[in-house]
Amino acid sequence: MPNDFFEAAAAITGSDAVLTGETTVPYCADKRGRYVGNALAVVFPADTQQVAEIVKLCAAHQIAIVPQGGNTSLCGGSVPLAEGRQIVLNLSRMNRIRAIDPVNYTMTVEAGCILADVREMAKRHDRLFPLELTATLNHCEIGGNLSTNAGGNGVLRYGNARDLVLGLEVVLPDGRIWNGLRSLRKDNSGYDLKHLFIGAEGTLGIITAAVLKLFPRPQSSATAIVAISDPAIAVRLLAHVRTACGDTLSAFELVSRSSLDIVFRHVPGIAEPFAKRYEYYLLIQSDDMQQLPLDDALRNAIRSFGADIPEFAVTADAGAAENWWKLRQNISDAQKREGISIKHDISVPVSRVAEFIARADAAMQAAYPGVRIVAFGHMGDGNIHYNVSLADAEQNGVFIAQHESEVNRLVYQVVRDLGGSISAEHGLGQLKRATIRDYKDPLELELMRSIKQVFDPQGLMNPGKVIDAGYQR
Amino acid sequence: MPNDFFEAAAAITGSDAVLTGETTVPYCADKRGRYVGNALAVVFPADTQQVAEIVKLCAAHQIAIVPQGGNTSLCGGSVPLAEGRQIVLNLSRMNRIRAIDPVNYTMTVEAGCILADVREMAKRHDRLFPLELTATLNHCEIGGNLSTNAGGNGVLRYGNARDLVLGLEVVLPDGRIWNGLRSLRKDNSGYDLKHLFIGAEGTLGIITAAVLKLFPRPQSSATAIVAISDPAIAVRLLAHVRTACGDTLSAFELVSRSSLDIVFRHVPGIAEPFAKRYEYYLLIQSDDMQQLPLDDALRNAIRSFGADIPEFAVTADAGAAENWWKLRQNISDAQKREGISIKHDISVPVSRVAEFIARADAAMQAAYPGVRIVAFGHMGDGNIHYNVSLADAEQNGVFIAQHESEVNRLVYQVVRDLGGSISAEHGLGQLKRATIRDYKDPLELELMRSIKQVFDPQGLMNPGKVIDAGYQR
Repeated sequence: MPNDFFEAAAAITGSDAVLTGETTVPYCADKRGRYVGNALAVVFPADTQQVAEIVKLCAAHQIAIVPQGGNTSLCGGSVPLAEGRQIVLNLSRMNRIRAIDPVNYTMTVEAGCILADVREMAKRHDRLFPLELTATLNHCEIGGNLSTNAGGNGVLRYGNARDLVLGLEVVLPDGRIWNGLRSLRKDNSGYDLKHLFIGAEGTLGIITAAVLKLFPRPQSSATAIVAISDPAIAVRLLAHVRTACGDTLSAFELVSRSSLDIVFRHVPGIAEPFAKRYEYYLLIQSDDMQQLPLDDALRNAIRSFGADIPEFAVTADAGAAENWWKLRQNISDAQKREGISIKHDISVPVSRVAEFIARADAAMQAAYPGVRIVAFGHMGDGNIHYNVSLADAEQNGVFIAQHESEVNRLVYQVVRDLGGSISAEHGLGQLKRATIRDYKDPLELELMRSIKQVFDPQGLMNPGKVIDAGYQR
Repeated sequence: MPNDFFEAAAAITGSDAVLTGETTVPYCADKRGRYVGNALAVVFPADTQQVAEIVKLCAAHQIAIVPQGGNTSLCGGSVPLAEGRQIVLNLSRMNRIRAIDPVNYTMTVEAGCILADVREMAKRHDRLFPLELTATLNHCEIGGNLSTNAGGNGVLRYGNARDLVLGLEVVLPDGRIWNGLRSLRKDNSGYDLKHLFIGAEGTLGIITAAVLKLFPRPQSSATAIVAISDPAIAVRLLAHVRTACGDTLSAFELVSRSSLDIVFRHVPGIAEPFAKRYEYYLLIQSDDMQQLPLDDALRNAIRSFGADIPEFAVTADAGAAENWWKLRQNISDAQKREGISIKHDISVPVSRVAEFIARADAAMQAAYPGVRIVAFGHMGDGNIHYNVSLADAEQNGVFIAQHESEVNRLVYQVVRDLGGSISAEHGLGQLKRATIRDYKDPLELELMRSIKQVFDPQGLMNPGKVIDAGYQR
């Protein structure tokens, strides 16, 4: 059977586009090395028709498929399971920009287009594609961005990845191609299918192309760095600044002291923003398509907030702003060098972010006195990355091995109490497939399973991810 | 059986909340009198629990349900069929604002809240709820707005109704309550179910409450009226103004000469905007949350466009702007008084609006020389209302009776050629349930039917609307 399958696959894509054995290894593990699986083969289709043929072939052979783009999933969503009976269907060869229509503010791209290239092509036509994932911009692909409904820094203003899509092309689990590549701002002609595939992490079908929304390019920009003693001040300041600056507000990021400390330890050439040290910092960005004195507006907005801000600075200079942004953008990298931690990608209503941090910190310190918490993230969307570890590297490995599930339970309990989500922007993948059962309404899980059953009755699409479909492959 | 049912229903809601016989009549026809049906009863539940009980009761008795809000559907979506074996479930009593969180920029409202009241409540908290449907603002209810994914003037900036929702509460066809009332900006913890119910016109379940997104309130505004000879100029001007004004651009509406002519005929006190008469006019609005000289910016944007604009005017004065807006806002009403017409609510890519109008006009004049076309609408979203009639009232009735389906066919053919939708913002309802089969990919229709089958296997939710589910009740 496998030999039949390989020959048939090679006949579809060409034999150089089907990897087997050792050559599959780089595609079977995630970037952090946390999930290492095995694949029967890695197949690289060149176009949608080839995807469809491969999917039909897999359906006929009962072989499961792991769709893969840039393989930057943080949840093990884009790598095969260990059992070795799945193929990886890598879409990186499908990287054409099919069309760009600056007047309609849209572009049609294939799933394998790298996010940075999509942004660059939009820029060449004097347009902005606002999805911005600093850490993976040059590696992640748009198909994966959509399959995981990626977030990032610009969500406050432009929404999540799903908000940036007008149409999709999807290969269904039976190999049929749904052409939903509409470029329409309004279309009320039936159920909205695209939103089912977006965020489904490849478990309902394979996104092969999309019509993306473009935006006018900002012409002026201002950035502020604000020192605060307590996230509760940040919550009130956000509402205040949003009222004052309106839609120009495009980022509102929170950085804790502990986050900065690890950045300073591991990344050279980055300085304290102020002479004095503070417990928390905010990075606030404002952009406009007109040439405006945004720095004055942002300065006035922060100044008019009142007395709770010991120090802040505002700049309209791109270089100065970039230096401040390094404080935020190097946290993930510094965290990686610092060593492993128990990570959480959670969201709560924006108004409850401070309460989340206070309660989670209290729960952690009560259970594990002296534990180190690195908290930072997209405050403007209520999305906090909350990493827990011990400062001592040796003790830390033991701590994580012994207490990870209890730490998760304590943090997620606070998230649940505040009406939050245990997965804000990274998705479920393998990482939270089981955990989500404890935090989501069983009725909602049942509806998800029913939908999975309709689209993928054989359970061949990325099994072991997102949803426990009631069958195991 | 019916008597059992009525008694049981009255036991759930109170007997004064169950209408039968003659008293049901006002709830059985749409506002334009185009769809007149019959109901076994009209039931007015007071809360979600009562909705759930009524739905369970209907499921047990195999009685179909027509969810109804303000009953302002233009497609017969909110009235029962003629056969008289359905009940109307009217949600108007469920009109509580359950919560408002200005810091999170959200409010939680019940389905029966009138849109104008939702907007007013947001305003009282210094927030904007941007959905604006001029014609029905004081009658339509938020449940209907979401079930039909309503559009309106603000879509260019704020998106359709679905873009304004963070969470939903839905009573499923078996009477279970799905509590998806999350107030989160980011939540990637499974399939996005809310987008299935939004725009489904009550065929998958009954939306009983929603968490709505709020926005900062604009503090300054500018409006332009622009005379043009040809919609092709409008297409280019839109791209130009959007690049110059960015996100402040909040409306870009097209009005044809013929639309103005009927306004002047039927609505007193409205004047020609310029001394000279032109073939088309644009109404452009720009808003900002900061105090800015938006009129200067808008004037400069239009002036820098070049020579194709014979006349235009810009104002920052609210009264002057309101007068101009009357030209646009009275078209629907004037059209009603002028007499019936063959209406189309279509969308195409924004870049192809001019092509649509030119080709549809040519097809109409070739088939029906001298026919009158009233074209207007949300140019900024590619959404044109395209009404066809004869100026002579007597001939018009015969014309419509004889040629409606052929007129539709000719107009929709152009829509299809340009990659458009035959229902942009009004939905399918009864009006386009059959027609959509000729214009939508059969595969997409099949997926819709599969989803319908999963959620509503008995076919009790608003049968005869949106989708031909393969069974007839």
